[in-house]
Amino acid sequence: MAGLTGGDPSLLRRINSAVVLHALRATDSATLTEITRVTGLSRPTVEGVVEGLIEAGLVVEAAADESTARRQGRPARRFRFRAEAGHLLGLEIGPHRVAALLSDLDGRVIGAQAKDVDENAPADERLERLRTAVAELLRRAGVARGSLRAVGAATPGIVEADGTVRLGTALPGWTGLGLGERLGRSFKCPVLVENDANAAAVAEHWKGAARESDDIVFVLAGLSPGAGALIGGRLHRGYGGAAGEIGALHLLGRDVTPETLLSTTDQPLHPLDEQAVARVFAEAREGDERARAAVERYLQRLVHDVAALVLALDPELVVIGGWAAGLDGVLEPLRRELARYCLRPPRVTLSLLGEAAVATGALRLALDHVEEQLFAVEGATARR
Amino acid sequence: MAGLTGGDPSLLRRINSAVVLHALRATDSATLTEITRVTGLSRPTVEGVVEGLIEAGLVVEAAADESTARRQGRPARRFRFRAEAGHLLGLEIGPHRVAALLSDLDGRVIGAQAKDVDENAPADERLERLRTAVAELLRRAGVARGSLRAVGAATPGIVEADGTVRLGTALPGWTGLGLGERLGRSFKCPVLVENDANAAAVAEHWKGAARESDDIVFVLAGLSPGAGALIGGRLHRGYGGAAGEIGALHLLGRDVTPETLLSTTDQPLHPLDEQAVARVFAEAREGDERARAAVERYLQRLVHDVAALVLALDPELVVIGGWAAGLDGVLEPLRRELARYCLRPPRVTLSLLGEAAVATGALRLALDHVEEQLFAVEGATARR
Repeated sequence: MAGLTGGDPSLLRRINSAVVLHALRATDSATLTEITRVTGLSRPTVEGVVEGLIEAGLVVEAAADESTARRQGRPARRFRFRAEAGHLLGLEIGPHRVAALLSDLDGRVIGAQAKDVDENAPADERLERLRTAVAELLRRAGVARGSLRAVGAATPGIVEADGTVRLGTALPGWTGLGLGERLGRSFKCPVLVENDANAAAVAEHWKGAARESDDIVFVLAGLSPGAGALIGGRLHRGYGGAAGEIGALHLLGRDVTPETLLSTTDQPLHPLDEQAVARVFAEAREGDERARAAVERYLQRLVHDVAALVLALDPELVVIGGWAAGLDGVLEPLRRELARYCLRPPRVTLSLLGEAAVATGALRLALDHVEEQLFAVEGATARR
Repeated sequence: MAGLTGGDPSLLRRINSAVVLHALRATDSATLTEITRVTGLSRPTVEGVVEGLIEAGLVVEAAADESTARRQGRPARRFRFRAEAGHLLGLEIGPHRVAALLSDLDGRVIGAQAKDVDENAPADERLERLRTAVAELLRRAGVARGSLRAVGAATPGIVEADGTVRLGTALPGWTGLGLGERLGRSFKCPVLVENDANAAAVAEHWKGAARESDDIVFVLAGLSPGAGALIGGRLHRGYGGAAGEIGALHLLGRDVTPETLLSTTDQPLHPLDEQAVARVFAEAREGDERARAAVERYLQRLVHDVAALVLALDPELVVIGGWAAGLDGVLEPLRRELARYCLRPPRVTLSLLGEAAVATGALRLALDHVEEQLFAVEGATARR
């Protein structure tokens, strides 16, 4: 165990920096004495580390507290984490809109921008809309592009580890697109690409309906539902990034598609026509028999798909998002059927973040990346 | 990071012991010089640790190699891990049989015993059969009960972390049974209880069809299929231990049960009557039209259940076990349908361990427990 008792001095310096940053980030500000106490490091070590962090722009001396100054003469110097030392973007690229969230290094959102985009827009046009939204957002917030430390982007489809969309039928020209590489041209920092339902699951766990649970399934309900799952608080992507893509399940039983189930005419709905879907739901609420039957068929399908996920994964909590979250009475049939057929039925709740979930999750993934760089040196943070 | 540079001397001793044991276990025998080189520990430290391990009975001086002795005069003393210093049991408690595997501390199987049991036998009788099998096995192998370091047991049903069967409909009197506690009365060592499909997944990963993959689903196919999944090499139990219990999925579509699907008469099969099932499959092979239609219906159901798991989890590999593993042609339809409907179809293969899978997995879980105690001190082993 030579590595534990001797070891690389530069590694030790990085570990100590991470430990001090971690401590400072958990509080408004702290004196050197307080940092020494919390971290267990020696006073000279803390002084050296804080000096280095100030040089790196990550720590700054906090404004003197005047009341303390008056009472005690010269107060001890206080230091704080500079959350404004860098920024993060969370991007959503969907069929009907692109959206961007901007935050500081604490993950505090300081600006948002969204733009509609035509569902038939080719990939270039969709990405151009996104670039425009990002440029406007940065300009309005007064944040320089060079201040960005990481960008997260979420989109429908199966996304490879390198940011390539392996399969994305919801957006034209999406399958095979090197999305990470394309987005990377606009930024000097790392760009992380994730499936939209996966990102939404992360978002609900961070600041939505799943804050209290580490084992969740998020269902992004639409005509073709997708899902994201956290297991033990970590995103479960699957071996090939395709976990949770339950939209194809109905095909196996040779059942009709959701587009047909939800139709009140002899023609199936267009898979991306959310307004047509909303009309059917509105008609059902107003008592239209044909619409009610269509909605009932759709709910049965949703229950089946969610049950498949629940039986496979056994989560503590299921969060329903996407447009089905706006449905009257989607929760009750889900709870009832899951209680009937699942050996251990999970709690079922609606998304708290609504349409912000996907971009929020993308932002959180960017934040995870930066935190990993700043705070976690060979698991030092995790063990404390 | 005081803990890394200073630290508790007894913890350090345990870490060093674990490191030396780990090194010895990876080889037939080693000299002190070799251990020093492999572990990076100092010669006096290695000498002290080896002495302690000899006192604990875990290490012994290996027999002198005579050829070396002749060549070099007095050869360096060699030491080896005493795999015979303790033993492990892997138990299967199923509807029709109980089985036990006995191994040494290397997981090498040194004996096996199985007994038939009536599917209607009450819990007490079933456990008594198991106790008899274990007693016979230990006696035949000449292993004292006190030599057992851990016992793993696998059984159908949802098993709580404390070894209680939360739900187990396949065996009479099983739901609510404190199985871990009941088994614990026969042993002084820890007893670990696990779901049978989960155990089989672990077994196929250890020494079966899934040795090369860390992301697998094992399907224990029967009239009501269960499944176990490994994610990143680790068993995924689910929040309440119910992950993979896909047998209830067909109920959601209001579909008929597998017992009815597989029947060639107007009466459903008995859920546990494997011989009746075998007859249907045999008749189908002989060309009986009604039996062929029944088998076809059953395979479609199995494909649907497996597809639900695959879409939810996205494994690299699906291993089919249970009695369906004996079916002619279960693989081809599965592969064909998964390729059609899964966005990233996994490889599909048959179990290599057959009916030994469940007990073998239980044994591996017992071995994991012992290795954790012997070799892993705060992750020291994992990092090397």
